[in-house]
This record gives sequence, structure tokens and C-alpha cells, in this order.
Amino acid sequence: MAKLTSRSEDYSKWYNELVVKADLAENSGVRGSMVIKPYGYAIWEKMRDEMDKKFKETGHVNAYFPLFVPKSLFEAEEKNAEGFAKECAVVTHYRLKNDPDNPGKLIVDPEAKLEEELIVRPTSEAIIWNTYKGWIQSYRDLPILINQWANVVRWEMRTRLFLRTSEFLWQEGHTAHATKDEAVEEAEKMNKVYADFAENFMAMPVVQGLKTPSERFAGADETYCIEALMQDGKALQAGTSHFLGQNFAKAFDVKFTNKEGKIEHAWATSWGTSTRLMGALIMTHSDDLGLVLPPTLAPIQVVIVPIFKGEEQLNQISEVALEIQNKLKLKGISVKFDNDTQNKPGWKFAEYELKGVPLRIAMGPRDLENKSVEIARRDNLTKETRPLEGLDSYIEDLLKTIQQDMYTKAFEFRKNNFTKVDSYDEFKKVLEEKPGFIYAHWDGTAEEEEQIKEETKATIRCIPLDDDIEEGVSLISGKPSKRRVLFAKAY
Amino acid sequence: MAKLTSRSEDYSKWYNELVVKADLAENSGVRGSMVIKPYGYAIWEKMRDEMDKKFKETGHVNAYFPLFVPKSLFEAEEKNAEGFAKECAVVTHYRLKNDPDNPGKLIVDPEAKLEEELIVRPTSEAIIWNTYKGWIQSYRDLPILINQWANVVRWEMRTRLFLRTSEFLWQEGHTAHATKDEAVEEAEKMNKVYADFAENFMAMPVVQGLKTPSERFAGADETYCIEALMQDGKALQAGTSHFLGQNFAKAFDVKFTNKEGKIEHAWATSWGTSTRLMGALIMTHSDDLGLVLPPTLAPIQVVIVPIFKGEEQLNQISEVALEIQNKLKLKGISVKFDNDTQNKPGWKFAEYELKGVPLRIAMGPRDLENKSVEIARRDNLTKETRPLEGLDSYIEDLLKTIQQDMYTKAFEFRKNNFTKVDSYDEFKKVLEEKPGFIYAHWDGTAEEEEQIKEETKATIRCIPLDDDIEEGVSLISGKPSKRRVLFAKAY
Repeated sequence: MAKLTSRSEDYSKWYNELVVKADLAENSGVRGSMVIKPYGYAIWEKMRDEMDKKFKETGHVNAYFPLFVPKSLFEAEEKNAEGFAKECAVVTHYRLKNDPDNPGKLIVDPEAKLEEELIVRPTSEAIIWNTYKGWIQSYRDLPILINQWANVVRWEMRTRLFLRTSEFLWQEGHTAHATKDEAVEEAEKMNKVYADFAENFMAMPVVQGLKTPSERFAGADETYCIEALMQDGKALQAGTSHFLGQNFAKAFDVKFTNKEGKIEHAWATSWGTSTRLMGALIMTHSDDLGLVLPPTLAPIQVVIVPIFKGEEQLNQISEVALEIQNKLKLKGISVKFDNDTQNKPGWKFAEYELKGVPLRIAMGPRDLENKSVEIARRDNLTKETRPLEGLDSYIEDLLKTIQQDMYTKAFEFRKNNFTKVDSYDEFKKVLEEKPGFIYAHWDGTAEEEEQIKEETKATIRCIPLDDDIEEGVSLISGKPSKRRVLFAKAY
Repeated sequence: MAKLTSRSEDYSKWYNELVVKADLAENSGVRGSMVIKPYGYAIWEKMRDEMDKKFKETGHVNAYFPLFVPKSLFEAEEKNAEGFAKECAVVTHYRLKNDPDNPGKLIVDPEAKLEEELIVRPTSEAIIWNTYKGWIQSYRDLPILINQWANVVRWEMRTRLFLRTSEFLWQEGHTAHATKDEAVEEAEKMNKVYADFAENFMAMPVVQGLKTPSERFAGADETYCIEALMQDGKALQAGTSHFLGQNFAKAFDVKFTNKEGKIEHAWATSWGTSTRLMGALIMTHSDDLGLVLPPTLAPIQVVIVPIFKGEEQLNQISEVALEIQNKLKLKGISVKFDNDTQNKPGWKFAEYELKGVPLRIAMGPRDLENKSVEIARRDNLTKETRPLEGLDSYIEDLLKTIQQDMYTKAFEFRKNNFTKVDSYDEFKKVLEEKPGFIYAHWDGTAEEEEQIKEETKATIRCIPLDDDIEEGVSLISGKPSKRRVLFAKAY
């Protein structure tokens, strides 16, 4: 097994190699579309199931809306249409026919041209609000709290596995409310749900904040987000939650009679996370040996590798290994006993390191004699010898410790790569020498934001939600500012 | 709440009304595409989760492959391409632009024409076998046992909610094997998994069989299927499992070195079920009052409806109702306590009948006094009074009884609508007077099959797998036949 390119050598190359070699995903024969391989999909399934649970606990239900959006519906909300028009896949025909000039080949049948083109959904506000129109007449029909798990397509010119693909999997929540306050509260609540998921399940610290107007979702009045910091000092937007005001209700004429008997437009939110989270997961925790998975997301949490010569030794070890496996399974821990006889233990060690299995138990004849095993942690690469007695409880606790340690390590990294700066020169210097989150004053104008972006490629990731007011002056214009914002180069 | 059209009056109208009124699905603004509403989706989720569990128990893993199939890949397996070319959605462009003649409107940007058209997957053999090519070199890479949950598009001219829609949700298994025997075994095994799911989870009896050559999946050497009988005497194909031979391996050049060191093409299967199962579920069990759900698939298994005058009575009833609810929840039973004060009990009774909730518990002041409740079964509409004491265990058992009774009822119906005939006249008479499965001899030719189909609209649903050899003569040609086949009109 060839080693991965190291992170210090070429972070981007390391990432691409890791995704492919750890069997997470690969590029497909379709431009910009990836194949999510079984091991990668198993991790995504765990993310999905946990988020789904959280959505249901907060009162949401799932539904499914059409993949295709007729052009006229797509156009209805102007800003949203404009935002996605330049990167959408368009269905124009509904049939192929035999190519008369090339036997065995097919061509588009010109007689099967659609009267109206269909857009493959880049996001579903349009199709969903067109549906909600039929569901909402009275305040009694509200709120509607729906989530959808689906594929969406955005025609990206430069793609990267998980981070930016033309087709990706995601969830999109779409809610309708009787009042503005309730919709704002929902948007804020779901951003918190995302933060909670990222921190407690992905072991990935995030900053919760508001996007600046120029970074908002097309069609939103306000965009909340969670921003994470990757190991190379670049930020990654890990989830967004939008307060959509009455924009879509107006575009699709969704009105209701309120408690006072007056007719008004409904208030909306939408919120989403995607398979991009897989990229965030990788770039938060992994190392030069491969993937590092938090126990909550690991398809295999513990692997048992026997060290043996000959069948008799293997049989003796197997007996004990299967016992350990059963005990751990009873505790809800997923365990693989790798009794394959083709590959050497060293090969297996490297393989499970590459795949990010949180704990490895190795067991040889001497361990058998001593009634002990060797336990190796993937996250910090430490090893220790432990007695068989009480091993299951020890491992159960250790998995929790690993989860916590991984969060702490990522948190410390972020802390060390979070710099307050008070001048533009310092800003540029930090961005060059110690990239990460840069915390600085901004004058609140799109002009200054744009100038900084053009000159440094850093963008305002968010206006953090929980920060105190602090008087200062902005980086370029020198105008007064009341709070700092978070800058970074970003994925 | 307006009553449903009765089944005897107009079965098709009854079905359409039921789907919409029970909040399962509705037509969307997109031709032939449906919106699966939260209540319908919750039932589909239960189907999906149970099937997913069964697939994993039989050694399969999930993955995700691209939505789009480049035309050249689509063409590669000739029969498959031919089978789906006439009903596929084709993406030809990847961008819209502002319409210079109509401000605010968008048109397809002619400069963003794709070099190669993309087909929205009608099924994924092509894209998947093109991927497997990179995964399979040696017999050690086999078998590959992958399933995918996805949306697919087949451009249907006449659509009906769940039964035939342009876009639908499904799962598609795609496996690769080193030997023919193993692939055949897999195709048979998965057909049995489907039968087991249909019978034990949907309470829907099915016949397992083989399709005739003319009814096979495009590109298959053999198609296994499960066929169910709907209340109106029409059959519904509820799942299919295909032995694909080496057709796709040859089309996509997927070769491997076998144990003997020789190079050969891999053997394939694919198998699928879809949201069509929702239609099958409805038409197997429901009645003129609405949906009837087997307990295994009911999002709400038990509803508690208080009968009260005034707040004090409601409070007294609530106390006991919540206690019942908690006890049932501890047994893993999903219970709704409907303490809404706007709708009358009678309205609620009708509503939960329409939604197919298996058990209704009604509780009034007299019940409170007697320490009893009234229990009503949705499946057979019987009611009884039961003491509070031991109610949770009683209900737990009753739900199992309902599941069994629903299967038995459907099984009896099928038995009563299963007719052996020995002449074509009799065949036509039965089809007219007592439609259902008709069991008759066939000469094995496509000609006789086609003639029967043209003259009666009945098709051969399958050649049942488990039947004995029985000498006879075929319906039209009078040629000798060794076994009967199953005819029916079908959805």
C-alpha cells in the first residue's frame, strides 16, 4: 500500500488521495459527479440518521418533492432564479431514438421536445412553495415543518470530491409560519441544531454566525451559518439556515387568514447540510496515515487483529476474540474481527489506520498467555496493554474519551489559528503566515468586503452570533465599527 | 369530510381520492411527478427501513451513483438502452440566461449546450457497471453486493399516483459475481427477501415466479418477480430480481482473473422495488372508509380519543390517557393522544379511519368510572370494551393479531380469486365475470402470449416457481404444456 502524500507536502493532494484510498468516494464517468463508495456512504448514513433524529425531535417530518422544476416556477422568485440560473442542468427532451446514420447509436428525438424546459433542482424552494400554496389557507394550517432528503444538481465548473460536485446529496428543510418572529426563531433553532450535530457528533467545533448581505443565500433575508476551520487554515461552511421573509410566499402567492381574520403572506425558512460535511469531517481530524473518525461516525468502531503463526494459534486467538466481539456488541459497539489469512498484521494495521477505525485490538500468543490485549488508539496513535478482565467496559469508556479528545484537539487547533487583527497590513501578514480565522473590524459595506476579497481572497465567513459589542475601526476605510467579524479563505 | 367514492362504484376513482384525502401524495405542478406528503412518506420510510435491514442482514451495503448517465454509456448495453430510450428525460444544457426580449424571464443559453447529452437515470445498470469496471480485477474483488436508494425517471405518458409516475423513489441492488451459479442464487435469494417483506411486513400475499421472455427486464437473461392481487382482481408486480448473465459485464468490459488464473466476464444481478409498493399496500387492504394499515407500517399504531364535555372531564380523561400512552410507548408502540378541542370525537373517528390507524381507543366519563376503555379495530371495524388493567399487553397482542388477520384476509381473497381454467372460452368468461389470477396452460410461445394479451388484455404475470409439473394443453394452440402459468390483467 503506497503511502499518502503528506499534508505538509500538498494538503489538497493529500485530501484527494485520502478520499479515494480510504474508499470514501471516487470520480465517476459523469463530469463533476462522484460515486459515493460503500464505506463513505456508511459514514454519510450515520450522519443522516443522527440529523434525521434531531429534526424529528424538533417537530419536523419528512416528505418528497419533484426533482424537476418547470422553468416558469424556477423564475418566480427573482433573486433565487438569478442565483442558480447559471449553473443548472436543463432537461429539454423526453425521448431518444435510433440514429438512422449510426446503427446501435441513439440520438435525441427532436419530436420529443418539451413545451417547457425542466430544471433539475439546485434547491427546492420554488417547487415546494408552489406546493405549499395548496396547503395553506388559514393560520391553522401553520406551521408546516418539513424536511427532505434528496439529490440536487448545481453545474460546477471546478469540482472536488465531497466539497464541490455537480450532483450532491443533502437535506433541505422548508418551513412555513404565521409570523415573522416564529420564522426567525425556526431559522435560529435549526442553525443551533446543526452546531450541536457538528460539535457533539462530528467532534468538529463551529462558529455560529450570520452571513453578510453579499454572502446570503439567493432569496433569503438573513442567512445563519456554522463555519468550521480546516487543518490547512481554510474555513468551510458546514450548514446554513435561512430566514426567507415573505419572498417565496409573495412569489408563489401563498396567503393565509390569520387569527385576526386578515389575509397575509406566510413566512418562510429553509436550511440545509450536504455530503460536503464528509469533506469537513476529513479535513478536521485526519492525518498523514489516513482517515481519523470520531467513534459516533465510524462504521467499524473496533477492529480485532489476531497475530498468529499457523492455524492452531489462530483458532486459540479466535476463541477469545469472538468472546470480546460478542461482549462489545452487547454494548452496541460495532466490532470487526479480521481473521483473514492472506494479509499480514502489518498490512491490516495500515489498512485500518487508513480507514480511520478508532480502536484496534491486537492479540498474539503472548497476550493469550497473559490474558491481555494491546489496544491502539487511532486518534493519537497511543498504545497500551490491557487485561481481558473488564475490557468491554474499558473500551466503552475509551470510545467516549476519544470522541471528547478529538473535539478538544480540533478546538485547540482552532483556538491557535484564530487571530485578532487591527490593521489591514497585519491582516494580510497573518493570512500569509498563519492562515485561519481572522477576527477584525469591518465597516459594514459591500465595498470594503469586496476589496478585501479581491486583494486577499479572504471573505467574511460570518458575523458571530454570540459576540460582545466592541468599538473599533474597520480595516480599510477606517470607519467606526461596533463588532468584529470573522474572515478567512474558504472552501 | 366528504365520503370517498365507494370501491364498487368506481375503484379507480376510490383509489385516487383515497391517496389524496388520506394525505399520502398528490399530483405536483410537474407533469407526471408526485409530491409524497409527510404521512405517505412516513409509511414509505418504514418500508425502506425494513427492507434496508433485510438487505444488510443478507450481506449488502449501500452506495450512491450519479443521477446522470452520459448517452454513450446509456447505449452500451443494447437491449437495456432500447428498453428505456423511449421514455427518458434528457439533459442537453447546463445554464439559463436572461431572455433579452422578456425582462425577468430566463431562456436556455444556447452556448451552454453539452457536448454529450445526459440521460436522467431510468435505472442504473449502465452507470454502475461502468464503475464496477474499475473495481473488479480478480475473483478476490467479488462478490460486490451493493444497493442504492435513489430517485429514477421514466417518462410515462399516463401517470397515476404511486402506481406510475415519471419520477419515483426506489432501491436498486446491483451485484457482481464470479460464477453464474452464485449470481442466479443471488437473484433468487433477493426475490425471496422481497416475498418475505411483502408477506410478513405488508401483510400482502404474493406469488413468486419467473417472467416469460417477453416480460423480462430489458437486458436480463431471467427475471424473477413477486406478483400480488389487488382488490379489483388486477395483478400488481411488486418487485423484480434479475439474473443479468454477463450482458453488462460484456457491454462494459468488466473482466476478472478467476481462481484458475483465467480471465472471464463477471456475472450480474439487479433487483428493485419502488414507491409503487404504496399503491399495492392501499389496494390490498383499504376499504370504503379509507386506508387500512398493517400495524408494522402504521406511523400511528394507536390513537386515543377522549369523549368529554368541558375542561374538567378532559383533564380527568387526559390523566388516564397519558398513563396508557406511556405504558404503550414503553412497549415500542406509537400512540397519539388527540386532545384537540376543536374537532368533535365523531370527526376524529372518521379522520383516523381515513388514515388507517390500526387501533382506536375511545374514553369517556363512564369508561373512567368503570376503569375501562372502548377499543375499535380499523381492519375489521369491530369494537369491544376492555378493562384498563393489563391494557398495554392486550394491545400489544392485538396488534400482532391484526397483522396476522390482515394477511389471512388478503390471502383468502386471493384464494377466492384464483381460478384454474382449461379452455380459452372459460378463460375469457372468468376474466369477465370474476377477474383475478387465472391459472392455465400455455404453449411457451411469444405468439400465443401476444394473442391472449391483444384479445383479452391479460398477460402472463409469471411462471410460478414452486408449482408441480402437470400435463395439459395450451389455451389457443392446443399444444402440450407441462405446467400452468399465471395470467391476469395488471397494473
